[in-house]
Amino acid sequence: MSRTDKKIEELGLVLPSELKLPPGVVLPFPWVSVRGNRVYISGHGPQEEDGSMSEPTGQVGSDVSIEKARELAEKTALSMLGSLKRELGDLDRIKAWNRVFGMVNSAPGFDKQPLVINGFSELILEIFGPEIGRHARSAVGMAGLPFGIPVEIEAEIEI
Amino acid sequence: MSRTDKKIEELGLVLPSELKLPPGVVLPFPWVSVRGNRVYISGHGPQEEDGSMSEPTGQVGSDVSIEKARELAEKTALSMLGSLKRELGDLDRIKAWNRVFGMVNSAPGFDKQPLVINGFSELILEIFGPEIGRHARSAVGMAGLPFGIPVEIEAEIEI
Amino acid sequence: MSRTDKKIEELGLVLPSELKLPPGVVLPFPWVSVRGNRVYISGHGPQEEDGSMSEPTGQVGSDVSIEKARELAEKTALSMLGSLKRELGDLDRIKAWNRVFGMVNSAPGFDKQPLVINGFSELILEIFGPEIGRHARSAVGMAGLPFGIPVEIEAEIEI
Repeated sequence: MSRTDKKIEELGLVLPSELKLPPGVVLPFPWVSVRGNRVYISGHGPQEEDGSMSEPTGQVGSDVSIEKARELAEKTALSMLGSLKRELGDLDRIKAWNRVFGMVNSAPGFDKQPLVINGFSELILEIFGPEIGRHARSAVGMAGLPFGIPVEIEAEIEI
Repeated sequence: MSRTDKKIEELGLVLPSELKLPPGVVLPFPWVSVRGNRVYISGHGPQEEDGSMSEPTGQVGSDVSIEKARELAEKTALSMLGSLKRELGDLDRIKAWNRVFGMVNSAPGFDKQPLVINGFSELILEIFGPEIGRHARSAVGMAGLPFGIPVEIEAEIEI
Repeated sequence: MSRTDKKIEELGLVLPSELKLPPGVVLPFPWVSVRGNRVYISGHGPQEEDGSMSEPTGQVGSDVSIEKARELAEKTALSMLGSLKRELGDLDRIKAWNRVFGMVNSAPGFDKQPLVINGFSELILEIFGPEIGRHARSAVGMAGLPFGIPVEIEAEIEI
């Protein structure tokens, strides 16, 4: 068992299955694309263990509370790690989290995007530690996200 | 004639001229910036063959239908390929599409951004094939875009 | 004194102190993350010389005028250069501005994001010149930004 898998297990966390898309939806791109030692990660949303999209959907600040949105950002980290494990085989291959772009589906006037995306950043740092896990970040408010998900995060890492 | 130009011609497509900016607008940056083997592509919108901005403008989900927005995303791919050809000389120099960030000017409640940006992704895959054309992607909803364009896409590629 | 510092002084500009966060806010990421010769820069907002967030806050096109927002984009360039100087020691180490992603907190219907972000781009070009300062750029409208700041910019550079 890899060091990273062990850490995830110690935290009592489970990586979800691949996203189950709604019927009729085709996404013509991979969740993770490896180019040399650089790994480009498509925008991920929160998933349940069986790969279904997490509930609730909607905008943060009206339909979804900050606390719930923070949980969804943690789940988004697990969605991304699930995709990375399926693509890389072993999460210990990850050498650096370079860039994290955190997008929050934001109700008019909502301005606490960093508190939401902290759920993602703190979990990545807990699993990977301060050197590998260190990432530049933006956490910003979108007018809408696919399928009404409250949080979507894209990233770039190195292996 | 390069392989990529031939493919574009076979598909009956034409790359547009450089964007004609509205009077008085100055954009102090290039559409494409080559740094070593990495190519950073500024946000592009849909253009007509003569370089004028495509109509209609406005938000998708209210002013602009999904079907029309999907067409505009295809046109955005052609705008980008036009800029790349002017900068690189030969589109066969493109070795990898790494990252595509698809932005949709979204009316309140619009959540079908992936269906729009699929117009871009599918055309890139058709022209470049599954290995070179493979890209990580996000497709998300913006509160507004320059000049009211319905779709803007930025990307990063390798030569 | 480095060439870049001299240029900043000649322009009568001063780099601000590190951002003073509102009480209780913790941001678990660095403002600048160096990975090899690549530097990932987190989303920055406008700051005053003492590190406090600049006023006014709110959306451009309603609460904040274009002219004021353009000034705030210039201040955001200085915030970023302040962070870079603290991390790199010497701004002359910067070899290339690769990518600039300019986000404008946009009131409904606002579509002049490029005029705002030009404040950032023009100052970077003035300080670094056309070769080092050349950057691919997008300037787009967000539904909300942290703490209600009108402008946030992230970037990627090379040293």
